[in-house]
Amino acid sequence: MHLGGKITTQPTVPIKNRDDLSRVYTPGVARVCSAIHESPGKAFSLTIKRNTVAVITDGTAVLGLGDIGPYAAAPVMEGKAMLFKQFAGVDAFPICLDTTDTEEIIRTIKAVSPIFGGINLEDISSPRCFEIERRLVEELDIPVFHDDQHGTAVVVTAAILNALKVTGKRIGDVRVVVNGIGAAGVSICKMLLEAGVRRLVPVDKEGAIVRGGSYDHPMWQWLAEQPQVGDTGGSLRDLIGGADVFIGVSRGGVLSGEDVQRMAGDPIVFAMANPVPEIAPEQALPHAAVYATGRSDYPNQINNVLVFPGLFRGALDCRARRINEPMKLAAAQAIASVVTESELHAQYIIPSIFNEDVVAKVRRGVIEAAIASGEARRVPPDFRSEA
Amino acid sequence: MHLGGKITTQPTVPIKNRDDLSRVYTPGVARVCSAIHESPGKAFSLTIKRNTVAVITDGTAVLGLGDIGPYAAAPVMEGKAMLFKQFAGVDAFPICLDTTDTEEIIRTIKAVSPIFGGINLEDISSPRCFEIERRLVEELDIPVFHDDQHGTAVVVTAAILNALKVTGKRIGDVRVVVNGIGAAGVSICKMLLEAGVRRLVPVDKEGAIVRGGSYDHPMWQWLAEQPQVGDTGGSLRDLIGGADVFIGVSRGGVLSGEDVQRMAGDPIVFAMANPVPEIAPEQALPHAAVYATGRSDYPNQINNVLVFPGLFRGALDCRARRINEPMKLAAAQAIASVVTESELHAQYIIPSIFNEDVVAKVRRGVIEAAIASGEARRVPPDFRSEA
Repeated sequence: MHLGGKITTQPTVPIKNRDDLSRVYTPGVARVCSAIHESPGKAFSLTIKRNTVAVITDGTAVLGLGDIGPYAAAPVMEGKAMLFKQFAGVDAFPICLDTTDTEEIIRTIKAVSPIFGGINLEDISSPRCFEIERRLVEELDIPVFHDDQHGTAVVVTAAILNALKVTGKRIGDVRVVVNGIGAAGVSICKMLLEAGVRRLVPVDKEGAIVRGGSYDHPMWQWLAEQPQVGDTGGSLRDLIGGADVFIGVSRGGVLSGEDVQRMAGDPIVFAMANPVPEIAPEQALPHAAVYATGRSDYPNQINNVLVFPGLFRGALDCRARRINEPMKLAAAQAIASVVTESELHAQYIIPSIFNEDVVAKVRRGVIEAAIASGEARRVPPDFRSEA
Repeated sequence: MHLGGKITTQPTVPIKNRDDLSRVYTPGVARVCSAIHESPGKAFSLTIKRNTVAVITDGTAVLGLGDIGPYAAAPVMEGKAMLFKQFAGVDAFPICLDTTDTEEIIRTIKAVSPIFGGINLEDISSPRCFEIERRLVEELDIPVFHDDQHGTAVVVTAAILNALKVTGKRIGDVRVVVNGIGAAGVSICKMLLEAGVRRLVPVDKEGAIVRGGSYDHPMWQWLAEQPQVGDTGGSLRDLIGGADVFIGVSRGGVLSGEDVQRMAGDPIVFAMANPVPEIAPEQALPHAAVYATGRSDYPNQINNVLVFPGLFRGALDCRARRINEPMKLAAAQAIASVVTESELHAQYIIPSIFNEDVVAKVRRGVIEAAIASGEARRVPPDFRSEA
């Protein structure tokens, strides 16, 4: 399946004769170039920018493999490019960077950006990923999205919204422990706050990040300044007692059945470490009201393939300048809404990625949020009758 | 034809269900990544590198339009990517650089190179194009080819070989005037020397570049040091008298009918300025034995679409480290050979780009030359029985 690579490029029209050639290439193409030179915005209608996303990595944090470099990272980026096309019709092209220097990565991505309508950052190690994304979002006028952070955060939030419905709890009431405050963990925390969580306990290897604490990591420091973050220090074991929700993006086996027993009634456990979850289903299920993982062989697979195709489809269709917090929250709500009230139960809180409603609903939610928040540069035709 | 862009990306296999997904993406893809991490050479068999070329510009010298920038250059690069696929099955992707700084361009191209099996530089202005190409050829281990220089030189050489046959002259005997010593002119001069020309007169706006002269432009200086270059100064008008061949890559109208009359018997005139040739057919044809242009509406169109598809097809198939002079000369000879002795005449010295023999013969010639000159890292299957 991987032999020879997993994507190809195809002309949109065949070149059958000399006339076709003079239209698509010189001399006919000159007219199209001049039109863009006069009105740069036309790049969106007259070139592939309209529908093309770069999937960019430096190969430093690939799946569970770590820093394997740009050549070995290519099969993952190609796979991601396939998913973009298959699920949302987005043309995606893999770019694997032969540098790990933050400034060099930023410069390179800016330099190659003109042909792309969006940038999906992938498998770039923490903490460089934060600075790289922040700067690119500031300095480019197309969406830049680090999927390992935000794709995960969006799908976790979608799953939390539905898990809370199953357990009859409200987001403003629950105490949520997030274990593993790396790229994904930080973004999950931010998004849960955005979604309305009022009691948040971020925990990393050295223990809880506490309100009022002082941290070198800028995102940890940001968390320590949020009023919703707890001020009690301690280990995961110290803090799990009485929690309503556990979200693990850490490593296999850090949570025991006894820990889950000590949580509040009807606890929600998302054990998303790959391939070995924070707690196995045999240990969690006797005690947890809802249990989910990142794996396809258990129920409730929390997979960011639910997010990025529809999210970029929406962002491209409305020519969003960036993907902001309201757009991400809209994507989470859209994913959650695919599972109807009558279908919803403890083993089905999140739709299948093969459910065609997912991309359509995510796209719609993202475009509505982009228009409402002023990030859209265009109202797509199917939204115009509403205006 | 240009609306929405002219190329798309396509998955090579469909993802129909969860099993397909776990094979092409996580967790199945990890095995493929690890294989490349252990043996980096496997990137050529397990990723799109095998068949993928970047078409890269900075938008500074686009067609006759000049410095129109990376956004307006995109339609040309997309068109070129179409031609790569249509004529030779090469997957090509356009990259338009938002920088015109030589060092920044070199750094950027090196940084994005891992996914590509070759780099086609396009429409980068002179003299930066020389330094950019030279450095990338030195510093990368995949072919880097500035088509405006070498594609043009290869197809001109092919046409010269056949025009000489028509006029019954030998390459070692003729005096050749090349007018316009920019990117294409320099490469044409180099290649003609490689092909056996012994009397060469390079002429630019300020007059002839003469043997023993001193020039700021490093490529002009190189020419001034070649024994085959004439030592008589003067203008084009001064030097055209008695010449056997005129090759113009300069601007419209610089050659008159009277100039052609003053050339040697049976003169060959290639008037390749676009869209207005150095001399119109009405003025040249009464005096020239062979007349050719870059235009599709006159006979003998000298078009580098004859070159790059087959040349890269061959280079990719034998995993050439670079495209060296013997490979380019082999490409020229292959193009010339498509026109058989019996077909050859003054109005048919160069085959049509829709002649399917062109790519096949260029590919074969290029691979043979790459193997013979030690640039090939692989002998393609269809060459193995010969070994």
